[in-house]
Parts: sequence; C-alpha cells; structure tokens
Amino acid sequence: MLYHVRMDVHPPRDMAAAEFDKLKAAEKARAEELQREGKWRHLWRIAGAYANYSVFDVADHDELHGILSTLPLFPFMDIEVTPLARHPSTIANAS
Amino acid sequence: MLYHVRMDVHPPRDMAAAEFDKLKAAEKARAEELQREGKWRHLWRIAGAYANYSVFDVADHDELHGILSTLPLFPFMDIEVTPLARHPSTIANAS
Amino acid sequence: MLYHVRMDVHPPRDMAAAEFDKLKAAEKARAEELQREGKWRHLWRIAGAYANYSVFDVADHDELHGILSTLPLFPFMDIEVTPLARHPSTIANAS
Amino acid sequence: MLYHVRMDVHPPRDMAAAEFDKLKAAEKARAEELQREGKWRHLWRIAGAYANYSVFDVADHDELHGILSTLPLFPFMDIEVTPLARHPSTIANAS
Amino acid sequence: MLYHVRMDVHPPRDMAAAEFDKLKAAEKARAEELQREGKWRHLWRIAGAYANYSVFDVADHDELHGILSTLPLFPFMDIEVTPLARHPSTIANAS
Amino acid sequence: MLYHVRMDVHPPRDMAAAEFDKLKAAEKARAEELQREGKWRHLWRIAGAYANYSVFDVADHDELHGILSTLPLFPFMDIEVTPLARHPSTIANAS
Amino acid sequence: MLYHVRMDVHPPRDMAAAEFDKLKAAEKARAEELQREGKWRHLWRIAGAYANYSVFDVADHDELHGILSTLPLFPFMDIEVTPLARHPSTIANAS
Amino acid sequence: MLYHVRMDVHPPRDMAAAEFDKLKAAEKARAEELQREGKWRHLWRIAGAYANYSVFDVADHDELHGILSTLPLFPFMDIEVTPLARHPSTIANAS
Amino acid sequence: MLYHVRMDVHPPRDMAAAEFDKLKAAEKARAEELQREGKWRHLWRIAGAYANYSVFDVADHDELHGILSTLPLFPFMDIEVTPLARHPSTIANAS
Amino acid sequence: MLYHVRMDVHPPRDMAAAEFDKLKAAEKARAEELQREGKWRHLWRIAGAYANYSVFDVADHDELHGILSTLPLFPFMDIEVTPLARHPSTIANAS
Repeated sequence: MLYHVRMDVHPPRDMAAAEFDKLKAAEKARAEELQREGKWRHLWRIAGAYANYSVFDVADHDELHGILSTLPLFPFMDIEVTPLARHPSTIANAS
Repeated sequence: MLYHVRMDVHPPRDMAAAEFDKLKAAEKARAEELQREGKWRHLWRIAGAYANYSVFDVADHDELHGILSTLPLFPFMDIEVTPLARHPSTIANAS
Repeated sequence: MLYHVRMDVHPPRDMAAAEFDKLKAAEKARAEELQREGKWRHLWRIAGAYANYSVFDVADHDELHGILSTLPLFPFMDIEVTPLARHPSTIANAS
Repeated sequence: MLYHVRMDVHPPRDMAAAEFDKLKAAEKARAEELQREGKWRHLWRIAGAYANYSVFDVADHDELHGILSTLPLFPFMDIEVTPLARHPSTIANAS
Repeated sequence: MLYHVRMDVHPPRDMAAAEFDKLKAAEKARAEELQREGKWRHLWRIAGAYANYSVFDVADHDELHGILSTLPLFPFMDIEVTPLARHPSTIANAS
Repeated sequence: MLYHVRMDVHPPRDMAAAEFDKLKAAEKARAEELQREGKWRHLWRIAGAYANYSVFDVADHDELHGILSTLPLFPFMDIEVTPLARHPSTIANAS
Repeated sequence: MLYHVRMDVHPPRDMAAAEFDKLKAAEKARAEELQREGKWRHLWRIAGAYANYSVFDVADHDELHGILSTLPLFPFMDIEVTPLARHPSTIANAS
Repeated sequence: MLYHVRMDVHPPRDMAAAEFDKLKAAEKARAEELQREGKWRHLWRIAGAYANYSVFDVADHDELHGILSTLPLFPFMDIEVTPLARHPSTIANAS
Repeated sequence: MLYHVRMDVHPPRDMAAAEFDKLKAAEKARAEELQREGKWRHLWRIAGAYANYSVFDVADHDELHGILSTLPLFPFMDIEVTPLARHPSTIANAS
Repeated sequence: MLYHVRMDVHPPRDMAAAEFDKLKAAEKARAEELQREGKWRHLWRIAGAYANYSVFDVADHDELHGILSTLPLFPFMDIEVTPLARHPSTIANAS
C-alpha cells in the first residue's frame, strides 16, 4: 500500500556537528536499504529546503510507523503522512 | 525536470452534471495522454478527497504551466507546485 | 486497518430541503449498513457542529476511498483521513 | 461522557534520555491503568508521528482535566479536547 | 457542566430580509428562554462582529448539541465549543 | 467594561521548579485578589490545557493592560483580548 | 478610549452596481461625519486592497459596536477590533 | 509617506534582566527621539500584549528599514509593515 | 520606489466568458502600458496558478494604490503588497 | 529558468556575535558572486524584516538547490521557492 510522506528535518542546534553527521550517515544508509527493499519507493529533495517528499510501499500502517519512527533522524523531523489510493485516470506504469 | 503537484478539485455547484461529466472525461483523456508521453509521471488519489498528488517530468516551468493551465478542470482546481531536486540518498530507481 | 476520519458537512444553500433530506436519509442508511458490516467502527457527532469523528476498519486505502467517495453526502463534505497504527500502550480491548 | 483527545508529544531536548524514559514508562503504566478502568476508552498512534488520538469516557470536564493534567508527559504535550455527542446514525455498538 | 461557545453568524445573501428577520426574532426568543432556564449562562457580543462568546451550563454533551443544533440560526453559524473545567484559582462566585 | 481574555501559559523549561512554583503561588494570590475586587469576573480552566478563559470588568484598556502585564506569569503567557459589547438578546443576569 | 480597527470590504457579486454605489456614498458620508465628531480618529487605505486601518476614539465597547454595526457597508465587511492602551514610550502628541 | 507597523517583542530568556533593561531604556529613548522628529507618528500599546501598533512617516522604504532595523530591540521583534495610502473618505485632520 | 506585489485572480463564475475575456484583454493592454512606462517593472506567472508575482516602481503608496485599484481585474483579485528596501548585498544591476 | 525565492533569516541566539558576523560576510561575498554570474538576478530587502525576496536564474532545480543549500546562512534560514513561468502580458524587458 502506498503512503505519501513529507519529512522536514530540524537539526538540533545544541548537538556537536560530528554527532549529527553520524546520524545523517545512518539515515542515508537506512534510506538506501529501504529503497533497495522496495519499501521507500520514491525520495525527492524539496528544492531549497532540508525536507523531502517520499512515497512508501508497505504492508500496513504499523509497518509504516515502525519504519518512520525508527529512522535515525526521526527525533528531529516533522512528518506528515497521506494514504494514497488508486486514481481512476492512472495508467499502469504511473501508480 | 520533476515537479511535485497537488491538485484539489472543487466541482462547480451551478453546472449541469452532464456538462461537468464531459469535462471529467476530457480531463481523464488528457491525463492518460500525458502519462503515455511520460510527462505526468505519477498520479495518485488522496484517500477520502477529490484531490491528487502528482509528479510531472517536463522541460521547464513554462511547459509545466502550459500543461496545467490547459487541463479541462483547471478552472475548478487549486494547484500547488513544488520543484523537486535530486535527494543525496536516492538510489537509481527511486527518483 | 484503522483510519481516523473527520467529516464536515456543508449543506448546499441552493438545494430544495426535500432533496437534501433524501440525501441525508440515504447517508444514514449507508452509515448504518457500514457499521453493521464492521467497516465504520465508530461514529461520533462533534458537539455543536455538523461534523463527525469516525474510525473505519477496512482492508486498504482503496476500499476506504471507495466507501467515502460514494457516500451520498460526499459532494458536500470536507474529509480528512489519518492512518492509525497500534499504540504501544494500548491494552487489548482499547484499539 | 465521551471526549475526543489529540495529544502531541514534544520530548524535551535538554533532559537526559534515562530520565525521559522513566517518564515514558510512568505514562505507559498510567495509560494502561486508565484503560483498565474504562476511562481511556481508545488509544491509537497517529502513523508517522509522536502523537495519538484517544477517546476518554469520564464523568465530567473536571475529571477529564484532572486525568490529562496529571499524566507524566503532560508538560511535554499539546492537547486538544473535543466533546463528542451521540450521532443520530450511530448503531448501538459503534458509539 | 460549563461549555465555552463562540458563534459566528453568516447571514445568507440570497434570503429575503423579512425571512431572515423572522429567524433572528426566533433566535432571540430562544436565547432568552434558555437564559431564563439557566442553561445559556452568559451571552456577550464580540465588539465589531456578528458573533458572540457564550457560556452554557447543561447536563452533558448531548444536551449541548441538542440546544445548539436546533437554534434557528444554526444553519448560518460557525460554532466552536470548549469544555470548561474548574480553575484552581477561582473563588466561589467567579466560576 | 468587559473584556474576554484567553491566556496560555508556557512554563520556562530552564527555570528551577521551586522558582516557578513561587510564581504560580503569586499568580494565584493575585488572581484571587482581583476576583475579590470584582475585576477578574470569571476564570475558567480550558479542559486539557494549561490555559484559561477569563472575563475582566475594568474601567478601561489602560487598567486592563496594567493588570495583565503585571501578572506574575505574564512573561510566560500568550494573551488574547477581545472587547465584549452588550448582546441584544442578553437578559439582565447573563451579561 | 482608542480602538484599532481593520475593515476588509467584500462587495457582493449579485448586487446591482448602482445599489452598491449608493451604499458606498452613504458609508463615505457616515465616515466623514464620524471623523468630524472626533470618533473616527484615523482612516487609512491599505495600499492595494479594498480595506482600511482605522483608529476610533469612543466612550466604550458598546458605542464602538453601535457605530461599526450600523455602517452602511457593515454586512459586507470583515472587521477586527484591538483595544489600544497607552504606550510607556509615547510622547504627548503621538497617542 | 505613511507606514503601518506592528511590532511584537519576544524578550530573550537567556539574557540577564539588567542587560535587557538597558536595551529597553535605549529603545524608549530612540522611540521618543523619532516621535519628536515626527517620523514615528503614532505609538500604541496592544492591550494585554508586549506589542505595539505604530504609524511611521518617512521619506521612503529605505529610511523606514533603516529606522526599524537599528532599533535596540530589533533582534527580539517580529515586525510587519503595511504601506498606507490616502483613503477617499478621509477628512483633512484624520490622515 | 519598489513594491513587491502578489496578485491572485479569481474569475467570477457568473460572468459570461465573452465579458470576462474583454476584461482580460483590457488588463493585458494596461499591464503592457504600465510596463512600457517603467512602472510595472517585473511580471511573472506563478507556475500552475492564475496568479503573478510583480515588482512595481512608482513614486509612492498613493500612486501604487491608484494603479492597482483601477486594474480591470481588480475586483476579482486578492493583492498583497510588500515594500522593498535596498539589500546591503545587492550589486548595482540586481536591484 | 527563473525561481522566486523568499528567505527569512533567524540568527542563532547562542552563537558569538563575531562568529555570526563572519557568516554574514561570507554570505554577502557569495551573494555578490552569484549576482555577478547572473544566477541571483534580483535581491531585495523586505522592509522591516531580516528577510529578502530574490529571483534566481539557473539551469534547473538541482542547481538551485545546490546554490541555496550551500549558502553560509542556510542553516539559519527559512526558504520558500516558487517556479516562475512566462506571463502572457510580459513585454520583453520585464521578465
């Protein structure tokens, strides 16, 4: 099932840069792993912002929440989830 | 270039149903054509709403505006456009 | 799967009362049917408003959208959908 | 009487993780106790967020405020309360 | 139990003035009746607006919704309800 | 003259609990004094929030501002003031 | 006593231009009369909008509401009122 | 030329009171100087808030920005500027 | 002096297309005239919307309001004006 | 391709003034460089605010994001990007 997700990252002012860089590297590794597994189907940078639009393809709400809430940057993100249904005008390869 | 687009449709109260149905059919035909051409890359229904999230892949802002502003339902839609950049954690097939 | 839904009804000013009453009766019948089927799990009136909070239990986003978008009052409602995951502090009979 | 409640948790940046974990454990224990007493009737995680939708069943506003304002995480939560009335289309087991 | 209520009236443009005046007179009569019964405890005009702040004192949410939703001007009002609890610093005659 | 006031308290994270408790005690004493003087006519807790709705009865804007801006918790509050006029449907004891 | 007022005018689409022009002329006459009486102390056009910022000097909330609610354009305006207190840094001729 | 300005002051939590008092004294001195020069034409306290509505009369946008951005409290203020045009219903002494 | 202006056009539903087309042609002619005069310095379409961002260069607020409020589409536009000052990092040809 | 950009700067409270001044100088140097290259086409100060409206002329979204996200003040800015299309009423030298 598909979920549209917007994530806005708010880096903590009071964390040492090196520590935050480690979190970012862990986030990147996790994001790539989830993309390879086909669960994080799309990941786009919102131009000009430390934010992304993403589409996830997971079994259900619990799997989605489990994935999002364990992302290394989760404590520093605002996340907005929208369930996506099939659009009647969508052709096969655009869903 | 990729653009994230949200469209919310507000059907006019004072138009005959048959006339609006014609517009919807024209919109569907145009949406399918643009998908086949690869310009309307993704089209998802927002669950519970007469609205969609879409991703367009076009040459530039002018082509995007030309496409959106000539959609048959354009006069009845609120449209919000966000330019999408490449995300540093995106793997090849998820952009 | 559970979805939290808020519906706000905006009755059309320009529809004859009898015609709208027919829609309301059809909405009520459909709501009761969906409750009996176990798909519309909770339905509460928001005090002081022509609006409700509901919880749906359906197979997936497509079933939810199919149900909501064919409600008799759908053209006159603003609907907001939130996917619900299991809460780690929920005991068995409170989900 | 039923109250719809949304709680958004904002963990304090400047508290030691162990101390906050103790608060979370106390919150969980209290939530389970209130569920067993039948006062916290529903508790759902909002997917992707450190937030929940809940339904409380208590005697009156004062009891509700007493419960909410003494939750261990109360100082770190935004809380929004909506009184729920009976919906005319609700069948017996869906209220 | 006390409820804080804000009502904003939006008179319909397309109703004959005489018809709306009849509704206003009925609203006034009902408001006075509810005040005499002690249920509409306070009623203040918001300066400069066709709106009021009110406090209701009724048995429960259902009675409140029953009263508000049958006000003659209900179809033309936006209503916002807030449950009021006892404040720890309130002295006897200020609640 | 009557003023409707909403106050939302945001306790400072970085103040010692004992120091803030002293402020709260001073606030309570001042609130009770103003109620006894008939200037703070109503004081209600907004259920579920560290906030109140109040009604003040003072000579003019300057007296109101003088009272509000010297409340012990003033530096930690968001305050919203609305002037209240007489409502044409108010009966004598409900103003 | 001074009140800051913002008025936004929304001319009705379905009124004949001549009829609205009559209302505008009546509004202008009333505004000038109130200015001559010293009650409408300041009146400025917000550049680019059919709106104004004004300052009224009247005895109390009831007089203000009486004036505003009987303006010829009142049914077509959104009005926002803010009570103004004396500023400690104001010199004599700037209040 | 006239500009309507709203300033909201947010005193820094982490500055010593004596240091902030010095800034406030400097701000007051500068405000009085600008009023005497006729550039800060009006200055009113928004009742209940650490905020003001002001009207400036300066040569152009650059002079306005120069004045506002060098106010001693500028780093702690949210400022909103609105250009004011002549209102067609303004009589001579109310502009 | 420079002003940043955003205009959002809301075509009236109840006007004949031919009549609105005449207004649009008049608006276009006026816009071109003002550009040739150097007063409407920039005019850009906001991609996907019936809206524009513009920059005007006029003598003062009154001239700006005079120009905007007599645009043929003024009655159908929401307009937001922001005064622009010189930026300290602007080089000569970028203001 | 043209992009409209609004940047709001929020200087960090906890950074030494000298360190922030260094960032500002670097930002100024970079802004001037980008203007000389013709990529930062316009740069205006929003009067009364630590904010600017800008227009960028770059090859694509990725170049824009690359430029914005490496500005020295990027970690302290809110940035909002709007793609600009050609307006049908624009004459040659006003785009």
